[in-house]
Amino acid sequence: MRKRLRDFGIKIGNFPSGSKNLITDVNGVKVGNFTLIKDEPSIARTGLTLLTPHEKDIYDENIFASTFVINGFGKSIGTIQIEETGLLESPIVITTTLNVGKIADALISNIISEHNDLITFNPVILECNDGKLNDSRRRWLSEKELENALKNLSDTFELGAVGAGTGMVAFGFKSGIGSSSRIVERDGQKYTVGVLTVPNFGRRSDLMIKGVEVGKILEGKDEKPFGSIIIVVATDAPLIPKQLKRLCIRATHGLARTGAKSTNHSGDVVLAFSNAIKIPRKPSSTIEIKYIPDNLPIFQDLMDAVVEATEESILDALFTAEDMKGFNGNEYKALPVEEILNFLV
Amino acid sequence: MRKRLRDFGIKIGNFPSGSKNLITDVNGVKVGNFTLIKDEPSIARTGLTLLTPHEKDIYDENIFASTFVINGFGKSIGTIQIEETGLLESPIVITTTLNVGKIADALISNIISEHNDLITFNPVILECNDGKLNDSRRRWLSEKELENALKNLSDTFELGAVGAGTGMVAFGFKSGIGSSSRIVERDGQKYTVGVLTVPNFGRRSDLMIKGVEVGKILEGKDEKPFGSIIIVVATDAPLIPKQLKRLCIRATHGLARTGAKSTNHSGDVVLAFSNAIKIPRKPSSTIEIKYIPDNLPIFQDLMDAVVEATEESILDALFTAEDMKGFNGNEYKALPVEEILNFLV
Amino acid sequence: MRKRLRDFGIKIGNFPSGSKNLITDVNGVKVGNFTLIKDEPSIARTGLTLLTPHEKDIYDENIFASTFVINGFGKSIGTIQIEETGLLESPIVITTTLNVGKIADALISNIISEHNDLITFNPVILECNDGKLNDSRRRWLSEKELENALKNLSDTFELGAVGAGTGMVAFGFKSGIGSSSRIVERDGQKYTVGVLTVPNFGRRSDLMIKGVEVGKILEGKDEKPFGSIIIVVATDAPLIPKQLKRLCIRATHGLARTGAKSTNHSGDVVLAFSNAIKIPRKPSSTIEIKYIPDNLPIFQDLMDAVVEATEESILDALFTAEDMKGFNGNEYKALPVEEILNFLV
Amino acid sequence: MRKRLRDFGIKIGNFPSGSKNLITDVNGVKVGNFTLIKDEPSIARTGLTLLTPHEKDIYDENIFASTFVINGFGKSIGTIQIEETGLLESPIVITTTLNVGKIADALISNIISEHNDLITFNPVILECNDGKLNDSRRRWLSEKELENALKNLSDTFELGAVGAGTGMVAFGFKSGIGSSSRIVERDGQKYTVGVLTVPNFGRRSDLMIKGVEVGKILEGKDEKPFGSIIIVVATDAPLIPKQLKRLCIRATHGLARTGAKSTNHSGDVVLAFSNAIKIPRKPSSTIEIKYIPDNLPIFQDLMDAVVEATEESILDALFTAEDMKGFNGNEYKALPVEEILNFLV
Repeated sequence: MRKRLRDFGIKIGNFPSGSKNLITDVNGVKVGNFTLIKDEPSIARTGLTLLTPHEKDIYDENIFASTFVINGFGKSIGTIQIEETGLLESPIVITTTLNVGKIADALISNIISEHNDLITFNPVILECNDGKLNDSRRRWLSEKELENALKNLSDTFELGAVGAGTGMVAFGFKSGIGSSSRIVERDGQKYTVGVLTVPNFGRRSDLMIKGVEVGKILEGKDEKPFGSIIIVVATDAPLIPKQLKRLCIRATHGLARTGAKSTNHSGDVVLAFSNAIKIPRKPSSTIEIKYIPDNLPIFQDLMDAVVEATEESILDALFTAEDMKGFNGNEYKALPVEEILNFLV
Repeated sequence: MRKRLRDFGIKIGNFPSGSKNLITDVNGVKVGNFTLIKDEPSIARTGLTLLTPHEKDIYDENIFASTFVINGFGKSIGTIQIEETGLLESPIVITTTLNVGKIADALISNIISEHNDLITFNPVILECNDGKLNDSRRRWLSEKELENALKNLSDTFELGAVGAGTGMVAFGFKSGIGSSSRIVERDGQKYTVGVLTVPNFGRRSDLMIKGVEVGKILEGKDEKPFGSIIIVVATDAPLIPKQLKRLCIRATHGLARTGAKSTNHSGDVVLAFSNAIKIPRKPSSTIEIKYIPDNLPIFQDLMDAVVEATEESILDALFTAEDMKGFNGNEYKALPVEEILNFLV
Repeated sequence: MRKRLRDFGIKIGNFPSGSKNLITDVNGVKVGNFTLIKDEPSIARTGLTLLTPHEKDIYDENIFASTFVINGFGKSIGTIQIEETGLLESPIVITTTLNVGKIADALISNIISEHNDLITFNPVILECNDGKLNDSRRRWLSEKELENALKNLSDTFELGAVGAGTGMVAFGFKSGIGSSSRIVERDGQKYTVGVLTVPNFGRRSDLMIKGVEVGKILEGKDEKPFGSIIIVVATDAPLIPKQLKRLCIRATHGLARTGAKSTNHSGDVVLAFSNAIKIPRKPSSTIEIKYIPDNLPIFQDLMDAVVEATEESILDALFTAEDMKGFNGNEYKALPVEEILNFLV
Repeated sequence: MRKRLRDFGIKIGNFPSGSKNLITDVNGVKVGNFTLIKDEPSIARTGLTLLTPHEKDIYDENIFASTFVINGFGKSIGTIQIEETGLLESPIVITTTLNVGKIADALISNIISEHNDLITFNPVILECNDGKLNDSRRRWLSEKELENALKNLSDTFELGAVGAGTGMVAFGFKSGIGSSSRIVERDGQKYTVGVLTVPNFGRRSDLMIKGVEVGKILEGKDEKPFGSIIIVVATDAPLIPKQLKRLCIRATHGLARTGAKSTNHSGDVVLAFSNAIKIPRKPSSTIEIKYIPDNLPIFQDLMDAVVEATEESILDALFTAEDMKGFNGNEYKALPVEEILNFLV
């Protein structure tokens, strides 16, 4: 993992970030990566990223969530039920496109092994396509790999070409996982917004960093646009599903600031959750919740925070990922950060 | 107003109805009709129905709401903001298609007259087309007529060819306003669901009453399908917007049981609200609410209650409306209830 | 397979059905079932149903499609991309809930084996839960079982407790697969609408056949509502995606006529496609299409046909399925058709 | 009207613009403004902008259209029917929030006066709130004002503080109407994309021009965010409704590049139409259309063109509008273009 955006003194937006500047700054959120890099029997440059939204059993203690599809050329699994109920009952796994079936099954295996009576479960598997660097038709990832990611669950984690980010490419450069967080504070209330992204989209010429059209300055030419981005937004602010939808939509604004245009074959999917309120799967009575009404000024802060944390998270995926050679002899170079810094003042 | 369905001992569904079997059985809900019937300078058979969801100022004390469009050949106003915020800030007015502009403006006039600082307001005007019986191009209704409906606000109101129901036609018979309510009670909790409908759709041959294809038995022939239905669902059960959306969708099931097929030129729009929780327009802090989680069995009861109250409400609009002659010499007969009773065993 | 509804002279709706009264009356559509019934090492009462929408390679020659979620407590896979592009690029597979991951992967295996360059593919896997009769946690179905269904592809197929219908239960009775078709003809145009359903929902007391509340007449008591329904609508009428959405929604009306209320834990998902127009995956120019504008009267016929074919298809699943004992000693009886016939006139 | 962005040699994006760099570069599109500025009996700084999408009667010859709500704190009228049918049957009018009722009625008056048999019509009235500069509670605009805009219909029109733009404010500066167009050309095909915007949103500190955070450099402080943006996208490329939805969504990306964050009380509504294909209201048969499949590379160009034309259009509204004093003594200064130019290289 190379240096992060902030290590160069580059700041995006107005709010302070949390102590790690990671989605895990949202209390209770953990992330675990599994990375697979090998050359035999074929080229594997792949992995998966697992996120658990709180420290209890998410199947038994659901939380409010929402999704938004910016561009739906994607194969993500699990959004129908979230949209109906406003509830998340699954850990979130991000992996590569053709591997979603195997990983959905692996997650089902894991969850049913821990719930004897379970015969229905909504696995949430989000995906980007690592087929430029990975022999993705092999579908390398299954139960064992998921278990390894589970073992790696932690409130800190590496960025760049690890986990689901292993084989990702964005704007013609090697990409990976990015993450960022923001603290919003007002009238005695204080909340954290965290974002995790897997950018895997865009043409070189589209890349924009802090408004500078870096992609047009750097040498190189465009490939046909391809790929996707997954954006996960976490918060400990108590919000209801309709408000989380509003947060999801703001990820679009952050995405657009990196130069993204959400091309035809891109699966740009956002999932937002709040882990502030737990809804038991088997409730015994009405539930008392506190929530932030939309007209309270701090709700505006939360939406704004999503915009900037998304932008920074995407850029960090590019800043931190390193050169990679992979499938079919394809090679993607890391973003030439030193060169870029010249343009950024 | 003729006799209601229940006056003939006909019962729809399983739950008991409220004391009035009206949407106003939901505590705080009031309805006011204004009816215009005159022959000069042209034929007027029109009106409007106004509903206030609670007894406070709805602009200052919003409530959760949701809408669902079964078939969107309609001109209803105000759904965009409800879908964004999940909040209703307006009384609900139902009137005839070409009159929506004038009535939207009349409602704006009324609301701004009571709020000195207001420069934005989302009027909710729902509509069906009374153009078969009314010279609707005249757009008879404006501020004065809205004020008259306001004066008529009450927790009881007439059904049939009054208010927005004045010129309505359904299944080839004279229609009007219908309403019904249900009480759901479980584990010490007790809530009311109320429905108000303005059925103005369907071919004679489609009409089905308690499963009997009455429309095919009765003499007469089909006209070209035309028209719409507005369905308003009210409850005092504490529900959040996503749950109110689920209630909205169940109105489709009740509608379908009357034989409706939601034809091409039908604007079938549902709006549901809960007046249990009031969200101040200018909140000063987080808000504590109690709500019924989806997995609590009484939530299922609430959804089921919408199905049956919708069905009964639609049929009651037909049972209560009387013969009417109107524009262009058109005449629509009341449903021949006595004849139908023979088929209903 | 027991007798079908029509074998008893029961007719639903107004339009004539196609020669087989199956979804395969739509020219080009084929269906293949795989059924697994065994008692060792545990109880298997499961299967899958595969549908190919035309006789060419659907991955290379896409067709217009749309989906609609009546109630989204479901785990179906593949709807995001259909909703974005309006295109179906996959066969449609229906199976049991916990098996969706394995079958998604099996379908990916199958499709990539036939396309050397494919690294992205949107598998469409729809599901209902057969866990009342099947030890569904075992997830019995995988590549081999999918291949068997492929071998069975035909323009005729059995109904009842076969394929995805093997372990299904509806209204407290043994259910299975149902299908029905309608021919619409007007002004020299003639099209077919076909429907395939897998009903797996509802309380006994809700069942309604031709308007008769059969479920309340028959002995027996309600279980807790559970389960889902998948509805696939096929047509050879040339329609664009937005129109197919309108067809999808009409499946709700047909569903409601059987007494369904789309309960809280039901995944009621509709997918409609037209195989009249093929859109090449790699088009070389603009495409000339003929389509039926919404205001042409035959478009209304197509929507109406969906209502009645859906209703009949659901009832036929119940009529044709036979008694079954299964997991945990659970037994579900076939619908007592002879007894019911007494109530239907 | 002050100078436009291009007059200073500032270029946004990659595609050439049309000859006028206006939405009216799309053949057949006409725009007419009506501007009202007066101080008695109260302060009027308002107007309306009317757009006709082709030169025939839009009520009788509909076109494909779609809408997208980025943030729905808005009162626009007419989107329900467009979303159902994919068809536009109305001219598009943009005006101020509280005036939508009166203008909807004025448009109804106008359309019914030209169609003797019309009793249903879906007026499309989009809105932003000019209440900072205009005594908008007066609702100054009605039939006469609409007729004046109709008289002004032309394939050229002024930008800045005219028509619907008269009282608009964006990023703390005087705003107005903006417009821009792009030509896409590939493989012998050539199409135009035109955009018209009415920006009325945002905090000063958010403003970004070509990536430079101008708003943070310029003196002045933020007001509470308020207001909205209407974005109309026109094209002569033959696209079906689902594709126009995809174009709509790309307006978000262009919007975000100006620094917009779509704040809580913003009504950010996009409407896109193609005037390439005319669908008669009373069709007599199937319709033959040519359309651009999504996978043809020029479809990607069309989506990209929306991003850049939207961005430029918003900036042009700010560049062209002049200082204005208005209601309550409020004054909004024009964007200090000369000062800004210093930062833009």
